[in-house]
Amino acid sequence: MSRVIRLALVQHAMGPDAEANRRTSVEGIEQAARAGADLVLMPELHAGEYFCKYQDPALFELAEPLDGPTADMLSAAAAGNGVVVVGSIFEHRAPGLAHNTALVFERDGTRAGIYRKMHIPDDPGYNEKFYFTPGDIGFEPIDTSVGRLGVLVCWDQWYPEAARLMALAGAEILLYPTAIGLDPDDNEDEQLRQLDAWRTIQRGHAVANGLPVAACNRVGFEPDRSGKELDAEFWGHSLIAGPQGEIIDEAGTEAEVLMADIDLARSEQVRRIWPFLRDRRIDAYGDLLKRWRD
Amino acid sequence: MSRVIRLALVQHAMGPDAEANRRTSVEGIEQAARAGADLVLMPELHAGEYFCKYQDPALFELAEPLDGPTADMLSAAAAGNGVVVVGSIFEHRAPGLAHNTALVFERDGTRAGIYRKMHIPDDPGYNEKFYFTPGDIGFEPIDTSVGRLGVLVCWDQWYPEAARLMALAGAEILLYPTAIGLDPDDNEDEQLRQLDAWRTIQRGHAVANGLPVAACNRVGFEPDRSGKELDAEFWGHSLIAGPQGEIIDEAGTEAEVLMADIDLARSEQVRRIWPFLRDRRIDAYGDLLKRWRD
Repeated sequence: MSRVIRLALVQHAMGPDAEANRRTSVEGIEQAARAGADLVLMPELHAGEYFCKYQDPALFELAEPLDGPTADMLSAAAAGNGVVVVGSIFEHRAPGLAHNTALVFERDGTRAGIYRKMHIPDDPGYNEKFYFTPGDIGFEPIDTSVGRLGVLVCWDQWYPEAARLMALAGAEILLYPTAIGLDPDDNEDEQLRQLDAWRTIQRGHAVANGLPVAACNRVGFEPDRSGKELDAEFWGHSLIAGPQGEIIDEAGTEAEVLMADIDLARSEQVRRIWPFLRDRRIDAYGDLLKRWRD
Repeated sequence: MSRVIRLALVQHAMGPDAEANRRTSVEGIEQAARAGADLVLMPELHAGEYFCKYQDPALFELAEPLDGPTADMLSAAAAGNGVVVVGSIFEHRAPGLAHNTALVFERDGTRAGIYRKMHIPDDPGYNEKFYFTPGDIGFEPIDTSVGRLGVLVCWDQWYPEAARLMALAGAEILLYPTAIGLDPDDNEDEQLRQLDAWRTIQRGHAVANGLPVAACNRVGFEPDRSGKELDAEFWGHSLIAGPQGEIIDEAGTEAEVLMADIDLARSEQVRRIWPFLRDRRIDAYGDLLKRWRD
């Protein structure tokens, strides 16, 4: 018994014009659908340049409601192409309350569910805690016609807890819209260690949970428009890993639509060989709920 | 500020004679000490062949108390060479109560602490649930003169929870005595996927927690002596990874003493760049204590 889905990752670059970015996203979805995709994953915040480099209250103007123009575009592209689409928006939920939210649309354009980024970074050039209220709807997979999707967002990808909670709720695949790049001030060794750390931890989630994992990153150089912060160079390298953490396919640093066929039924076999879920010591994990064990 | 320790992993093969195996272990510790090691990590259950292939009550004769011959050998080797040693025994704790236990000895031969394997596998050829009572002293690091050691054992290495709990308790390095090998019936692709999954998940623990990780495996072909089970081929490939998951050094499939200098102070710098501990959503992790989220 196999259950194969064709997964596509639309790795693309973004510029300052949101309408142009949405057109690029739609073109990627169309290209994926023509190639037979069932499920299409977009990068994080694909309607715009990465705006969290610095803190500016005016940039909350970029936030959109759950039925705003990017959501409408994703819904129409899902319905128009008969594919399930996972997109990502800067969500305006209420005045003074915004999230970094992934949206999942069914093949008919209806919204299957949302996920609000739970882990929020805050580092030089990545001032996300200023913009994004941490998600309040937890780690809940989203049921679709292609399977139960464990949708997480970017910084979440560094947290084994997030991956595990999705797996324990029956997620059949983990999907990460992402925006991650190099610090141009780092030397090449450090840049390569960071890139490989990013690949490794996500492959590790696949291994730990016996399920496939995919991350769709943006690409391209995005200049800092404040003149005070760093330019950013997003590293691409979107990846699709199988349930043993094996790389099925990965992208380079240019825009591309990465595609692979994934057999969601293989998790059953992999987990029979390595039945990690059987042996978890849930009697001894209580301190995972602590900040620090002191 | 750096705090460099020289770490050695004594990857070796075992035969049916426990005394001969202990001599091999001691020779490895001596070789490591001559090369300047501060800390020496042994493979899992290094006093014997891997005996869990099948279930035989007579094999409980192999179990030793915490002050038995293997513990005595480790203590003497630690004191005689002035190194901290992490060894592994089949522990006889009481009639009908045995554990798979790691022992840590200080440079003066005193016992710094023990860890009883918490996650117990049970698979064809690895009947560990028959022999090993799951550990009951939790995930507690062991303080030594070289640092706070997060000692775990083999199957624990597949569990991000174990690594995280050690890190949250201030472990400065994760150390895994290990016995893992190929299933000779698997094809080469499957064997390579398994080996790389094993490397990947441990490197992932390093990334997730910003600390170095080392695993010392056994090597060699061990025939099944029951005539009913599989022979085993232990794959070696002991590894030392830094706090970004980068491989610092790794062994092949033959016996060797693998050595590397590790700067335990680098974790501070790595965690400042990627402050994952800051952003854990401990308010939303409660379901990690469930078997399944249904």
